[in-house]
Formats: sequence, structure tokens, C-alpha cells
Amino acid sequence: MIVRQLRDIQKTDRLVKSKGWDSARLLLKSDGMGFSFHITTMYAGEELKMHYQNHLEAVFILKGTGTIEDLGTGETHKLAPGIMYALNKNDQHIVRPDTDLLTACVFNPPVTGQEVHDETGAYPTDVEAPREAAVNS
Amino acid sequence: MIVRQLRDIQKTDRLVKSKGWDSARLLLKSDGMGFSFHITTMYAGEELKMHYQNHLEAVFILKGTGTIEDLGTGETHKLAPGIMYALNKNDQHIVRPDTDLLTACVFNPPVTGQEVHDETGAYPTDVEAPREAAVNS
Repeated sequence: MIVRQLRDIQKTDRLVKSKGWDSARLLLKSDGMGFSFHITTMYAGEELKMHYQNHLEAVFILKGTGTIEDLGTGETHKLAPGIMYALNKNDQHIVRPDTDLLTACVFNPPVTGQEVHDETGAYPTDVEAPREAAVNS
Repeated sequence: MIVRQLRDIQKTDRLVKSKGWDSARLLLKSDGMGFSFHITTMYAGEELKMHYQNHLEAVFILKGTGTIEDLGTGETHKLAPGIMYALNKNDQHIVRPDTDLLTACVFNPPVTGQEVHDETGAYPTDVEAPREAAVNS
């Protein structure tokens, strides 16, 4: 059994910070669960364009409000506590947080913790070697 | 893209109630994400003995307090908001909520939504046919 406390994880290199968001990885590929589990904050006022071509992701909103635009359909959905979105078609999307958005996220396949978004907004399929750029701040 | 609201799911048969807990299944096997995602409440004062022999499960505590006893090691861990436990070894365990415990749960493989705990505290590997007993209340 693995037992972890979010505030402990936030003091380690499992807290990844990038432009417009940070993410505490409570479970990574190395934990052997077959998925990764993150507590991620997307920052108020940002416009986060993402396209996980190699991963399926589900996001459950814990705190905050904003919108998500589905670039495949052109639809925009409101985000608020209790709402979940799932990118079941590797959907290209833009999240626009009105306030800081605190979320619980699940990735399949699990991320290794070393990925950074590439120029397309994707994570690579897997990264075995640590990258210095994984923590930007 | 799938977008769902917890309070809508709670009005459907994706809200499963059993002795000592209820669980709103925001994502099930049929959603094709490769995991299932549930918002589960374990009730204050209950003693919930579980053994998911066929599933790995991660649980993140959103609200409430209690303890989890790892029957493999004999260790007991406190549960409070921000703590996650992951049953990476299909660990046999007992959760004892002091207050109602509101949690976000991920199962791999995903549950179908029709499982009930059997006499060992496990879910079966898969259930294709609906079972009347899935909703007990």
C-alpha cells in the first residue's frame, strides 16, 4: 500500500511547475498502478491549449471556475466544482480558468513525471531519461 | 470529449449505494478510458473491509477523517483531506471513517458499474450482465 500526503509531494520533484499551471504527481508510472494521478492547478487568466495525442486524461474540478473549448466540435463547456471532463478522443482543447482551477487528473497511460508539453501541446509517449526542463520555475 | 456533472450522475443508476458507502461513477469501463473514476462516500462509523483482488485502486481524500488498516502489514494510517492511498498490491484493508469520508477513486481495470463486493470483499474481474443487487437501497 502506498500512502502519500499532497503537501509532502508538493515539497519534492513530483511537483512540476510550468507556464500557467502546476501539478503534484501523487502517482506516476513508476508506482505501477497503470495510471497516474495528479492534483493540478491551472492559473486564473491563462489560456491553456493542450493536445494529449498519446494519453487519455480525465479531469475532475475540485475548486474554481472557467471554461473548456473542444477544438474538435467548437463547443465550450463551463467548468465548476463537481464537473468532470474526459478527453476520450485525445481531444484538442483550450482551458480558460476564470479563477485558479484546482483539479484531480488521471492519465492513461501513466506519465513518468519527466514530460513537458511539446510544441503541439502533447506529452511524448514516454520519457525514460530525466529532462532538466521538466521543472520550469 | 465527455463532460459530466456529479449531481447529474447522482440522479442516475451510476450512483451505486451499498452498506456503508455510496459511489457515483463518473467514468466506467464503457467510457473507454481504461480506468474508472468514482466519487465515493464512506459513511461515518462504518468498518469497511475490502480486498480488490482483481483491481488496483487509488483513493484521494477530499473531505472527512478516518483510518485505513493495512491487513498485510498490520499498519494503520490516518486519513484526512490531501491524503492518497493506493492499493498497489491488491492490499486487503479496512477503512474506518470517523466522519463521512468523501473521496475520488480510480480503478484499473475499470469497473463496469454492475459489480458488488463478494464475500471476500473483492469485485469480480468483469461482469457483463447487469445484477439487480448492484443498487441495494
